Amino acid sequence: MPTYNVAPLSRLIEQFERLPGIGHKSAQRLAYYVLGLSKEEAQSFSDAIMDAHEKIHYCKECCNLTDQELCPICRNETRDQSIICVVEDPRDVIALERTNEFNATYHVLHGTISPLNGIGPDQLCIKELLARVNDGKVKEVIMATNPTVEGEATAMYISRLLKPLGVKVTRLAYGIPVGGDLEYADEVTLSRAIEGRSEI
Amino acid sequence: MPTYNVAPLSRLIEQFERLPGIGHKSAQRLAYYVLGLSKEEAQSFSDAIMDAHEKIHYCKECCNLTDQELCPICRNETRDQSIICVVEDPRDVIALERTNEFNATYHVLHGTISPLNGIGPDQLCIKELLARVNDGKVKEVIMATNPTVEGEATAMYISRLLKPLGVKVTRLAYGIPVGGDLEYADEVTLSRAIEGRSEI
Repeated sequence: MPTYNVAPLSRLIEQFERLPGIGHKSAQRLAYYVLGLSKEEAQSFSDAIMDAHEKIHYCKECCNLTDQELCPICRNETRDQSIICVVEDPRDVIALERTNEFNATYHVLHGTISPLNGIGPDQLCIKELLARVNDGKVKEVIMATNPTVEGEATAMYISRLLKPLGVKVTRLAYGIPVGGDLEYADEVTLSRAIEGRSEI
Repeated sequence: MPTYNVAPLSRLIEQFERLPGIGHKSAQRLAYYVLGLSKEEAQSFSDAIMDAHEKIHYCKECCNLTDQELCPICRNETRDQSIICVVEDPRDVIALERTNEFNATYHVLHGTISPLNGIGPDQLCIKELLARVNDGKVKEVIMATNPTVEGEATAMYISRLLKPLGVKVTRLAYGIPVGGDLEYADEVTLSRAIEGRSEI
């Protein structure tokens, strides 16, 4: 770090640099922007970080992020509690909620089984899912992990654990995305789309 | 904001969204990253913001950012105090210092005169510059504002204020950037490069 840099500023730049997708130049830009904020604005930024960190934890039921005991979806009694959609990440819940069509509950795994990165089934929220299914109220579990190698493997692993419990396990449909182009679709997607074809 | 979002998280996303160059998706990504930090890491991020904000102010001499009374460059007695390089922004100082060739002092204006944005000469650190020149120790002022309309206008304005004080006022050279391509240089740059040609 060059000597003409100011210690508190360098520290702030370093902090921004550690964020994903932020390089040194962007970190510098963000740090100078923060310096230009009013004292109240800087305070509320600083507070927002600690606040989010302290208040947010996993929902007791579905392991989604919440600042209360249960997340808003698990608290909502109009939701169909007999169907659980299993996703990798809290952001996937937001994406699925955007469809405005799914009115059941979720279960967030917080990752996928990935032996290369040292992540085994115990580090994911799988036992919480089994406990929910064991309660007996659940009829169907939809596996909505990402269609990647790890996502598939995790879905397979969980479905094997669930089947003995007498619950229906389904998987999201594969196919060409709406608005996509057949020409640019890869072979695997296309063959899955043919496999999963339906009558019109 | 959709109801399934958690208030402290939404607030954090909003805070990131206000930063320059950060859209909603990136803000979400950064916020989730911050949630994944350890408590100590989040604390030091939060502290770095307030720290930088509280401790950093303008150098008494050159208006660069510093956490002490004088910035490291103004404190450095081996630097030539008779030459001042006037720049728009603290980042320009860093850029010029990277050349490792300039061994005089700087003066940071913190902006340019820009009537359209309501920024007049009084909002810039111009009177501090005049006070320094009035001291009598300064022999030359190099105008190193950006070669934009506002930068040029500011340089002209300041040079008119400085000339009656009997100080030499210079401007950074214009020309084709090193490693650049004549074919892609714009007309104004090229004609300035011809104007400023030198014997080899």
